[in-house]
Amino acid sequence: MRPSRRQPEEMRAVSLERAVVKYAEGSCFVKFGDTHVLVTATLEDRIPVWLKGQARGWVTAEYGMLPRATLERTRREASVGKQGGRTLEIQRLIGRALRTVVDLPALGERQITVDCDVIQADGGTRTAAITGAWVALHDCLAWMKTRNMILGEPLRDHVAAVSSGICNGRPVLDLDYAEDSEAETDANFVMTGAGRLIEVQATAEKTPFTEDELMTMLALARKGTAKLVDLQKMTVM
Amino acid sequence: MRPSRRQPEEMRAVSLERAVVKYAEGSCFVKFGDTHVLVTATLEDRIPVWLKGQARGWVTAEYGMLPRATLERTRREASVGKQGGRTLEIQRLIGRALRTVVDLPALGERQITVDCDVIQADGGTRTAAITGAWVALHDCLAWMKTRNMILGEPLRDHVAAVSSGICNGRPVLDLDYAEDSEAETDANFVMTGAGRLIEVQATAEKTPFTEDELMTMLALARKGTAKLVDLQKMTVM
Amino acid sequence: MRPSRRQPEEMRAVSLERAVVKYAEGSCFVKFGDTHVLVTATLEDRIPVWLKGQARGWVTAEYGMLPRATLERTRREASVGKQGGRTLEIQRLIGRALRTVVDLPALGERQITVDCDVIQADGGTRTAAITGAWVALHDCLAWMKTRNMILGEPLRDHVAAVSSGICNGRPVLDLDYAEDSEAETDANFVMTGAGRLIEVQATAEKTPFTEDELMTMLALARKGTAKLVDLQKMTVM
Amino acid sequence: MRPSRRQPEEMRAVSLERAVVKYAEGSCFVKFGDTHVLVTATLEDRIPVWLKGQARGWVTAEYGMLPRATLERTRREASVGKQGGRTLEIQRLIGRALRTVVDLPALGERQITVDCDVIQADGGTRTAAITGAWVALHDCLAWMKTRNMILGEPLRDHVAAVSSGICNGRPVLDLDYAEDSEAETDANFVMTGAGRLIEVQATAEKTPFTEDELMTMLALARKGTAKLVDLQKMTVM
Amino acid sequence: MRPSRRQPEEMRAVSLERAVVKYAEGSCFVKFGDTHVLVTATLEDRIPVWLKGQARGWVTAEYGMLPRATLERTRREASVGKQGGRTLEIQRLIGRALRTVVDLPALGERQITVDCDVIQADGGTRTAAITGAWVALHDCLAWMKTRNMILGEPLRDHVAAVSSGICNGRPVLDLDYAEDSEAETDANFVMTGAGRLIEVQATAEKTPFTEDELMTMLALARKGTAKLVDLQKMTVM
Amino acid sequence: MRPSRRQPEEMRAVSLERAVVKYAEGSCFVKFGDTHVLVTATLEDRIPVWLKGQARGWVTAEYGMLPRATLERTRREASVGKQGGRTLEIQRLIGRALRTVVDLPALGERQITVDCDVIQADGGTRTAAITGAWVALHDCLAWMKTRNMILGEPLRDHVAAVSSGICNGRPVLDLDYAEDSEAETDANFVMTGAGRLIEVQATAEKTPFTEDELMTMLALARKGTAKLVDLQKMTVM
Repeated sequence: MRPSRRQPEEMRAVSLERAVVKYAEGSCFVKFGDTHVLVTATLEDRIPVWLKGQARGWVTAEYGMLPRATLERTRREASVGKQGGRTLEIQRLIGRALRTVVDLPALGERQITVDCDVIQADGGTRTAAITGAWVALHDCLAWMKTRNMILGEPLRDHVAAVSSGICNGRPVLDLDYAEDSEAETDANFVMTGAGRLIEVQATAEKTPFTEDELMTMLALARKGTAKLVDLQKMTVM
Repeated sequence: MRPSRRQPEEMRAVSLERAVVKYAEGSCFVKFGDTHVLVTATLEDRIPVWLKGQARGWVTAEYGMLPRATLERTRREASVGKQGGRTLEIQRLIGRALRTVVDLPALGERQITVDCDVIQADGGTRTAAITGAWVALHDCLAWMKTRNMILGEPLRDHVAAVSSGICNGRPVLDLDYAEDSEAETDANFVMTGAGRLIEVQATAEKTPFTEDELMTMLALARKGTAKLVDLQKMTVM
Repeated sequence: MRPSRRQPEEMRAVSLERAVVKYAEGSCFVKFGDTHVLVTATLEDRIPVWLKGQARGWVTAEYGMLPRATLERTRREASVGKQGGRTLEIQRLIGRALRTVVDLPALGERQITVDCDVIQADGGTRTAAITGAWVALHDCLAWMKTRNMILGEPLRDHVAAVSSGICNGRPVLDLDYAEDSEAETDANFVMTGAGRLIEVQATAEKTPFTEDELMTMLALARKGTAKLVDLQKMTVM
Repeated sequence: MRPSRRQPEEMRAVSLERAVVKYAEGSCFVKFGDTHVLVTATLEDRIPVWLKGQARGWVTAEYGMLPRATLERTRREASVGKQGGRTLEIQRLIGRALRTVVDLPALGERQITVDCDVIQADGGTRTAAITGAWVALHDCLAWMKTRNMILGEPLRDHVAAVSSGICNGRPVLDLDYAEDSEAETDANFVMTGAGRLIEVQATAEKTPFTEDELMTMLALARKGTAKLVDLQKMTVM
Repeated sequence: MRPSRRQPEEMRAVSLERAVVKYAEGSCFVKFGDTHVLVTATLEDRIPVWLKGQARGWVTAEYGMLPRATLERTRREASVGKQGGRTLEIQRLIGRALRTVVDLPALGERQITVDCDVIQADGGTRTAAITGAWVALHDCLAWMKTRNMILGEPLRDHVAAVSSGICNGRPVLDLDYAEDSEAETDANFVMTGAGRLIEVQATAEKTPFTEDELMTMLALARKGTAKLVDLQKMTVM
Repeated sequence: MRPSRRQPEEMRAVSLERAVVKYAEGSCFVKFGDTHVLVTATLEDRIPVWLKGQARGWVTAEYGMLPRATLERTRREASVGKQGGRTLEIQRLIGRALRTVVDLPALGERQITVDCDVIQADGGTRTAAITGAWVALHDCLAWMKTRNMILGEPLRDHVAAVSSGICNGRPVLDLDYAEDSEAETDANFVMTGAGRLIEVQATAEKTPFTEDELMTMLALARKGTAKLVDLQKMTVM
């Protein structure tokens, strides 16, 4: 039995709430069970220096965690004076994943910054963040279309992410913190609406894993992301 | 007429929601109109070095703002690499105000850290933060009392805060961002439930002000904080 | 009896010495008793980025303390790697106070930086700094007028500052360090030559204070700043 | 044809040179073609604070790149004042991979730090670093065994890593920089001597990829790491 | 003719004023013409970690420059966030020079920190700082002797420093800023009262120099430091 | 007898290997016995801001040490977050020394950055770095001449450096780490091919030294640098 009493293929209750803050061009409050992430998408009329003059835009992400999003209080990175390796790794992943489905030249020389701030963390913050980020990005692009800033559809597909792993020898989908800290292997999969892979990150936390286990985790994740994409579709309909 | 169509003595809609996050010993989501602040209180079994061996505890505060809490996106302090002067000033104010009403020796050698994170900012974030922080602190102390960590009542009084100012020559209570950026004078008052003053910060934004204007602003703030204290009482009842 | 044997309304010996360093456009060495601050005003032909193209100038301040200005040596902020919250708070206050009396468009697109460095600290460094800063600023503006960089008088009024407080239940003016660390309440007032208020910062250090106490402290400060303005007038005559 | 004229399954010339620096307990200079990484393993009689009293050791890694290891000079991170996200991500990966095969309690309360410094970079620095790090770690552990610091064999298996990818629609093994910057998909695989997986990181650089492509890349990497493990065996024989 | 109309062997007017600040155990305000440095010596009952348990003390130095000590305002290092290379180089030199003449074991496990803050800079700040630092250090040690913290005489000799150089082909002593920026070669000499060398730093600013020129500069510096040592003797008599 | 069994005037085995990395315009791997430094020279089409529009180029240097270049592992400066005083001091020295022999206007508005990274340290890293840096710089300038970026010969002379010192009362040349840590006096000399002095840095590590000792150390260094210049000549022939 999983600590959460869920079935192996059962995800946590997921919700996606749009337009949750007043100023952002797009925003989404995403919950994967007790993991809660606030995502905003900000449009700005500037571009990184190294992109200037190339007639295309950019999508980037930043990630943060409120100090008491966690069981024990985590030190505030602003007060420590730098972002940790985990933070940088996650925000690089989110930005990379989103860019894969955006037609950057269609944006013009503009940048969209997607901020993912974890209000409460119970495992899977990066997968929740990516899933919610797609909604915030979608709404920001819709905002731009309404204002004739872009023509056509710059968003080529959905992006959703979920974790799976091997826990006590059994494959499970969408690990919460209790499972995550016990798992032998833990993987994050980022997929498109068409079911193709954008990113696979599988890590042996305790013991190396086999190709079969990788395939099993991927199969679970495929089911999970398909459901998340369905939810995204209903949300932005 | 005020930009918000409020009467001069009318505050914004205020709400105080308790126990909003899963892990914190105390928490409060406070709204002053469109200004929304999430406050958590964390108990830790450690104390600043300079306090060691003095048989008393400490209450401190940290303050942050999500990047898109504001009309224009603000750079994330964790990414800039340091907290700005405004942030440091506000968190020092919050900590100082709370300590005024706490019996620190009663805490034992323990520290309570109050984190105030602004989710959405429309003026008055520091006054909202202080008002909500009192609730989070109250609940953290209640949590400790339940576990027999403290005897008696370590909280001597309520603490609430509100701004007032002179706008277009007219005194007004609880300025939102539109008023704040236009005001000739802007003041923040932190008061106890007994109506005494903890902190007065009055600033001539455009033109120096008179003693009479200070008195008028104080009178307005007195009415405001009395209402906020009433709301705190109902909230923690 | 006050620790310094002064009368309640008696300020420390104050002196303002002009033109104390060779290179600065304006400078003042200000003493409030044993509190000694060196203030310089620097004119530069540049302006903060966010002010560009608005046809007006800027006045800003920086504050620092030599490591052994204090009883115990304080760590050098340059070696720590950042300015502390107290430093940032004070330099923001000084800059804000000075700008209130300067006609910024009259400066053209130029910036005046007022550096306040505490050589010796015995309480009241911020009030001494502001009082001396007005003199340095005055001389810097005079330097500019001599060179026809500005027409007319860009300085609208004097600015002086003094602290007052409640010590052992008695109101006192211009607290030194011994009193400051014992005071129940401590307030800093920044006022103009015309007797109007620029900034009020009153803080309950131990016990919350009443409106009457605030008024008493203000009345004391009014007398103090009037004397300081008189001294400024004699100094720059 | 690949830019390097290699066959799709052909790796670059790989060499592993041991004992290349005078002081380190273990060291290896690893070359994957024009990618050259110097790896040292340092034994220290201290342990991270959070590990104290748990009767086990730790293995960690740091990664750096000389400024002119790259085609264009890269700014020195020591001079920038912080390590970039890519650096932190890679060093976290290396440390995690090595720990998977080490019996940490066997080390006692000691730490081994593996430093991987890229002398010349032509793609695949992280896979070369991991492959060489295993050799340096092996020699450091041998050094400890010689001195009776550890009993038995704390190293459970080999660890080697290689990249594979899809370039112009064709799967290729061990990408150099020219291929890496053109690839549609790029993956890094860390495997054990027994052929199990320690880490899979597959990223769609341009277009999302399919499960089949993932499997093909994995099959290539399996062949590559098997060869690397053979080379490690010959090297430490 | 030198820009200052001084003779080649003529130093600027030098003065050493003791006990210039209230709190420091030793202090000296040193002037070499228009170069003014405030030096304080602080005694602390702690020692660097790496010196613990070795039954000896430590002498170290820090150096800073007020922003408007210079013709053009220099950015405050505390605000930049780090000390520059020139600052670090000078403070290392001062500490090293002083330690050469102090009997460190005689201090016990205590540290003396010598802070040298440049109030006004007109060339030769490091030589003025060292010359004044000896006085402040002397007085700090005298303070300790009075309190029976040390027995005997821990100060083995005087330390004084002066610059010399080759300007327009002519050797000159004690360069001011105008000469320093024009000199072909510039050297700093730190010497003892007995006329021995503690540190020689000679630098070809424009053209390499000969051994003869080095000897000439040294001969000049020998005369200069002898005079400075005489002045130190009169000062502390 | 010296720890290394060398004669007093005997240098360690020195080697200079050119063109050791693939991308740099010039490079040199220099060994002074067990001290090994990799030097690269990078040409860039940009110039420091303060040099713009002056129709001349710039030569600068950076210095670093791999963590396990030393007997005990040194913390990585990139991870500490800043370069130490010793690093800054050495890189300032190297840049200054090289600029003395380069005709900067001949470079055009271009910058050459010389990176000196210590792979293994056994004393004398700065002298080895300077000696190797001249070779890397020479080759970078040759690269430019081949491409008609410069006309004529911008390199006016050789630059080489060596240390000498007084050890157990005896003058010795080219100290290794064992000697360096025991020496009474330690000096670094930077000289030209013509035998003129660029920089002299002599430091009393334990006891002040005499003018005669300085002369003796200089005489030794003169012999050493002459040999190093000969080796440079053979190397670039």
